[in-house]
Amino acid sequence: MRDVFIGGAGMTRFGKHAGQSLRSLAAEAVDGAMADSGLPTDAVGAVYFGNAAAGVLSGQEMIRGQVALRPTGLLGKPIINVENACASGSTAAHLAWLSVASGQCDVALAVGAEKLIHEDKQRSFAAIASGTNLLDLDLGSSAGEVVSTGSVMMGEYAKEAAAYLQRHGAGADVLAAVAVKNRAHAALNPLAQFRDPASVEEVLASRTVAAPLTLLMCAPLTDGAAAIVFCSEDVARPLAGAPVRILASAIVSGGDGPADAVERAARRAFELSGVGPDDLDVIELHDAAAPAEITQYEQIGLCGAGEGHKLLTEGETSLGGRIPVNTSGGLLSRGHPLGATGCAQLFELVHQLRGAAGDRQVNGARVALAVNAGGWMGSDYAATVATVLDQ
Amino acid sequence: MRDVFIGGAGMTRFGKHAGQSLRSLAAEAVDGAMADSGLPTDAVGAVYFGNAAAGVLSGQEMIRGQVALRPTGLLGKPIINVENACASGSTAAHLAWLSVASGQCDVALAVGAEKLIHEDKQRSFAAIASGTNLLDLDLGSSAGEVVSTGSVMMGEYAKEAAAYLQRHGAGADVLAAVAVKNRAHAALNPLAQFRDPASVEEVLASRTVAAPLTLLMCAPLTDGAAAIVFCSEDVARPLAGAPVRILASAIVSGGDGPADAVERAARRAFELSGVGPDDLDVIELHDAAAPAEITQYEQIGLCGAGEGHKLLTEGETSLGGRIPVNTSGGLLSRGHPLGATGCAQLFELVHQLRGAAGDRQVNGARVALAVNAGGWMGSDYAATVATVLDQ
Repeated sequence: MRDVFIGGAGMTRFGKHAGQSLRSLAAEAVDGAMADSGLPTDAVGAVYFGNAAAGVLSGQEMIRGQVALRPTGLLGKPIINVENACASGSTAAHLAWLSVASGQCDVALAVGAEKLIHEDKQRSFAAIASGTNLLDLDLGSSAGEVVSTGSVMMGEYAKEAAAYLQRHGAGADVLAAVAVKNRAHAALNPLAQFRDPASVEEVLASRTVAAPLTLLMCAPLTDGAAAIVFCSEDVARPLAGAPVRILASAIVSGGDGPADAVERAARRAFELSGVGPDDLDVIELHDAAAPAEITQYEQIGLCGAGEGHKLLTEGETSLGGRIPVNTSGGLLSRGHPLGATGCAQLFELVHQLRGAAGDRQVNGARVALAVNAGGWMGSDYAATVATVLDQ
Repeated sequence: MRDVFIGGAGMTRFGKHAGQSLRSLAAEAVDGAMADSGLPTDAVGAVYFGNAAAGVLSGQEMIRGQVALRPTGLLGKPIINVENACASGSTAAHLAWLSVASGQCDVALAVGAEKLIHEDKQRSFAAIASGTNLLDLDLGSSAGEVVSTGSVMMGEYAKEAAAYLQRHGAGADVLAAVAVKNRAHAALNPLAQFRDPASVEEVLASRTVAAPLTLLMCAPLTDGAAAIVFCSEDVARPLAGAPVRILASAIVSGGDGPADAVERAARRAFELSGVGPDDLDVIELHDAAAPAEITQYEQIGLCGAGEGHKLLTEGETSLGGRIPVNTSGGLLSRGHPLGATGCAQLFELVHQLRGAAGDRQVNGARVALAVNAGGWMGSDYAATVATVLDQ
């Protein structure tokens, strides 16, 4: 397979967009990505559309991409709708990468778009629950009261977090420290949902969602869209923006063994790229809840088992530290519009590798990793995508 | 890109499977396909899962493939959920083909599975309606009373059929003749849903769904699953079953211009394969309603505009005719479990090209075409996939 480059990236501001539709959000991201690339829409040979919640929230199933992208001028081209819950955006990106890597086309577009905020918040939570393994999980008993007060996923993250803290003798303040770090990063990202700094005390004092998780340790409900233009080397080289290369894109499913989907996806991406954890300069991880970021440090090999919370509290993963994680603000503060998150992670890393990340630039960033995970099978994510990029 | 072969195909009987789940149907098809190939499950490098209606009918969204395929031993591998309404199965097949064609893996599996029959038939129709462009269509006025009595799609097919008959001076008996032909074919297919022969009179006398369409001119509600194993030449050659080659797989979207998605997809597949309509020996078309088969004869170039009904009534597309179409019984009689249909078409053509189609064998069949279309944008299908295969 041939080398693939990102020639353009576009993204809406993430947040509550009461006045915008899935269609207008998607169009804004696509227009931004195409403009960023300088390529005409006509150059696009295939489109992969990632969305997770529109079926439950709007009733539109099956052909969401065609309906959402109708005003963009892309209708007529191959449009393929993909779903992998919170990893839908990176799954779309994986396939767009494959389309170009294979030589099937020279330009492919990945779009992640989500309108998750509903006037009835229970509908949003119901949408999120539809990304868990409903056939095998007894949500009523496994997630307890969380089902009625928030996302069922947070009940699962809470159980893991409690076990982690006990096993490694850490307190809830390390969970709060993830939120504090990512809020500080988001303050530097004009497209992030929550840009006000928060202190450890404020995070701990926010409403308990599922002990030990408080509200500010949980990814918010978010609307937004992001789009990425993948292209061949011949197409990419003349483009205005410095092209960023995809060194590897790896996807795995999980849920029938130990909770190792993140570890397997990252390992595979490292194998394919020849890059290891020590080579990384900047990383976007899937901090749908604060503890997930800490365990992912360990799963991708930034540190040993049980050492993730120290890596964090020693400032190693903050901007200015040895290996900054979630410079965008992450899911916790940039926001988490389910199907858009995977493309938003790539948007951030493209800007970091171009040296165009403004106040949150990681100096000299050359090699980057994104990990986007989604769905819940009961003991592990249903899908995880790991992407390695370089300058 | 390298050559890709179908090394195995599996399919459940299509029909009403009240006692089976989406999971058990998918497992039966997957087990059948793997057994047919002789390859172990471990050999599979990527899985693409096509389903259209489970979101509406069961509430399971986002990770349907992982949930359905859990018992098959495939969990852990890349599993990607794809949707394109009634073309979901062929979209999954297109991506499995791409995975192998690109060299990403040597064996990829496409699964199409659908549990469409619900005890409340209105729920099944609601699922089908969710594959139309809800944002731009006013279903209440465009489909009229059909919405309350059957699939909204049939209202659209009826309008087209009436216009076609008037334009070309044909009667509803030509629509009935499609149903009669495909019922006769299905009588020879042990996996078909409706195997009793029907006469023109019986078809015309069945309940009117949307004039001029009667019940037997409309694809039924169906449960079922089919799976196809795609593999590289090195893997395919030693297999027991004669490997069938994919000469081309082309996908397009439609809905913002003339109703030409079928024509564009077929033309693209012909261009890529170097095969033309005259080279074909056997064809599976998307006869979701009887008139669609006739217009597709014209769109894929079997005959000129307005000549499709003559091709049919002269017996050219019947078994024993010059170019048999829908030897499986088609959507009308084999049945139409939305997301499974695209893979079922390939199942039929694999058996025809192997010379293993039993009583419905087209003698000397060497080159085949499948056309699978899905979704409704208001004037055209949202997605169409055309696949050319040879021995």
